[in-house]
Amino acid sequence: MTAASDRQLTALSELAGLVAGGVTRRSQLATATGLSRAAVAQRVDLLIAKGLLVETGTVATERGRPPLTLQLASATAVVCAVDLGATHSAVAVAGLGGTVLAEATEDLDINDGPEAVLTGLHKQLGRLLDTAGHPAEHVRAISIGLPGPVEASTGTVIRPPIMRGWDGYRVPSFFADRYRAPVLVDNDVNMMALGEYGHRPATAHLLYVKVGTGIGCGIVSGGLVHRGATGAAGDIGHIRVPGHDEVLCHCGNTGCVEAVASGAAIAATLREAGLPAEHAADVVRLVAAGDPLARRQVRLAAQRLGDVVASLVSFYNPDTIVLGGSIASLHDDLLADIRAAVYRRALPLATRTVAIETTLLGRRAGIEGARRLAVQHLLSPEGIGHMLG
Amino acid sequence: MTAASDRQLTALSELAGLVAGGVTRRSQLATATGLSRAAVAQRVDLLIAKGLLVETGTVATERGRPPLTLQLASATAVVCAVDLGATHSAVAVAGLGGTVLAEATEDLDINDGPEAVLTGLHKQLGRLLDTAGHPAEHVRAISIGLPGPVEASTGTVIRPPIMRGWDGYRVPSFFADRYRAPVLVDNDVNMMALGEYGHRPATAHLLYVKVGTGIGCGIVSGGLVHRGATGAAGDIGHIRVPGHDEVLCHCGNTGCVEAVASGAAIAATLREAGLPAEHAADVVRLVAAGDPLARRQVRLAAQRLGDVVASLVSFYNPDTIVLGGSIASLHDDLLADIRAAVYRRALPLATRTVAIETTLLGRRAGIEGARRLAVQHLLSPEGIGHMLG
Repeated sequence: MTAASDRQLTALSELAGLVAGGVTRRSQLATATGLSRAAVAQRVDLLIAKGLLVETGTVATERGRPPLTLQLASATAVVCAVDLGATHSAVAVAGLGGTVLAEATEDLDINDGPEAVLTGLHKQLGRLLDTAGHPAEHVRAISIGLPGPVEASTGTVIRPPIMRGWDGYRVPSFFADRYRAPVLVDNDVNMMALGEYGHRPATAHLLYVKVGTGIGCGIVSGGLVHRGATGAAGDIGHIRVPGHDEVLCHCGNTGCVEAVASGAAIAATLREAGLPAEHAADVVRLVAAGDPLARRQVRLAAQRLGDVVASLVSFYNPDTIVLGGSIASLHDDLLADIRAAVYRRALPLATRTVAIETTLLGRRAGIEGARRLAVQHLLSPEGIGHMLG
Repeated sequence: MTAASDRQLTALSELAGLVAGGVTRRSQLATATGLSRAAVAQRVDLLIAKGLLVETGTVATERGRPPLTLQLASATAVVCAVDLGATHSAVAVAGLGGTVLAEATEDLDINDGPEAVLTGLHKQLGRLLDTAGHPAEHVRAISIGLPGPVEASTGTVIRPPIMRGWDGYRVPSFFADRYRAPVLVDNDVNMMALGEYGHRPATAHLLYVKVGTGIGCGIVSGGLVHRGATGAAGDIGHIRVPGHDEVLCHCGNTGCVEAVASGAAIAATLREAGLPAEHAADVVRLVAAGDPLARRQVRLAAQRLGDVVASLVSFYNPDTIVLGGSIASLHDDLLADIRAAVYRRALPLATRTVAIETTLLGRRAGIEGARRLAVQHLLSPEGIGHMLG
């Protein structure tokens, strides 16, 4: 099958998705899809031949002939999930079913530029594959979250505010000679949003608001990341908040929420007051130590951020808002004021069901979302098409 | 087929959609879907039996046997599209392919309550069906846009700011005894957004911002209205704009964009200045007459609204923003300031491709969107299921 039609790819994707969802027998697949047994057999055999599915006989029946059971391949197929931050790279090798086989975090400096950072990442990935006992040929997809804007369709970094030397760099090209697998690249906050979404089965419309050094947002509806026209969706850090037009933001505008409510902004205010606060992490430390001024500044930041979150609730009407990032670890102080702002500003129809929560996955949200995106892609018509090559 | 599976409904929906899109021969449908000719025949025959498709032999071939051509039924199937405003009802009877067969607008007062208004609407619809030469049994779907929040899944009006007597009213129940067709109800701004989207083939993510007496927004991505968790999405009128915390809004909060940039707000400001401006329409009239104070107030409103639109661009990253509503007819004055605000506030990745335009359809956007939603529903698995059921 060298030139599979869109329709054929959709049918293969549907079958693979059913197997991933627990429909494990050929007869069940025929019933679920309405396809004939012959048509199921032809497609399933192709997916087995390409190494996406395996079939095993494990259950003995009364008649003595064990029915064969299909599942996603595990012995010969893995995905690599990467959460690349400003100062760290977290990497996991995982099975298609979700089992993490090996995982490690290393320090780096994103401003060393793409070649140096990705070379280090490639080595880290190699070590983890060794640990997991899988050769590079087993890698079926690589999924990378980056701390900056990405054109997801091409994996190109676009005018990142941090990430010196990365502007215009097309990340998948680095891996093209090293792995045969597709390389998916997205903004780290989108990955985190997808990770949190995957752990909330009852959620349909989720916003993940990250409050760390900066402020960003990931949007997931119906299991899919909303990236917008150019991949810039969720870039909420430069929304103007009322009452702060005197505060200059690094973007050149004034009154941006990132300039008055981010970890960096809180730290700057505390420094001006003579407290030892260089980074967002220092803010967290001071609040944990009970410093009243630090707590006060976090609560003020929560009120300002709450105004922005309230406008997102009015516009998008999500059922779940997840707060993540280092400042979100201060949830006692942060949640109350954000919730208060949302309930005060947004209308009842939008607020009566919205849950405003902190992260379930913490620092693993990004890597978990990357893993999920990799498998989602692998089972998609596009991913199947890549596999059939 | 009394209990068609989801899969069967999806297959039928796909076939109907292909026919609607111009795939008109059974052999072409088999190629396009990968189904056998027998399977196509069985499904097509069902859709013909149910009156959704018709098959005609119109083209003579060399061998003398005219190949049969499928198309959406037109002689026996229509949809009714309704745009219900505060003071008018615009109704159209249209063929499934989009041809408007009859259309009329009548005056009403939405505050007469649902029974009175819908009884009048029912009569209006009856007259139009007479004009179009179709009995009530030909109506396959009724689609109604309302000037208030609607829970679209049930067609229930929820706490409308105008529409006295409608709170909690389930609109489809009124029509249940009168037509066998499904009744789709949605906020009028969502309908307008869908109408404008349908006339822009290159658009993927569209926001329709209505600036009339009030301010609202409809969101369409990938051809589907984004309604959010409770149908409240797009309710942007009460987003807070910077610098106007002294202005009281009818919602009880202060500084809402609707309180400082809507047609009603501009009219109020002009009244205070001694100008004869009761309604948004008076603002339009004054600007058209060249009144400088009226123009000034419209431009100030555009700047305030522009701040909100900029935050929506940052968050949602649309490729198209359409301005509609009575104030949007003043586009020379409105567009420049809204564009300026968006380009000043939102980041380059989000603004470099966004088009900010006025409506293509004008007052017909709502009725055109309702028509489109009716056909979209009719050809959907859910609509097919209703038809079979």
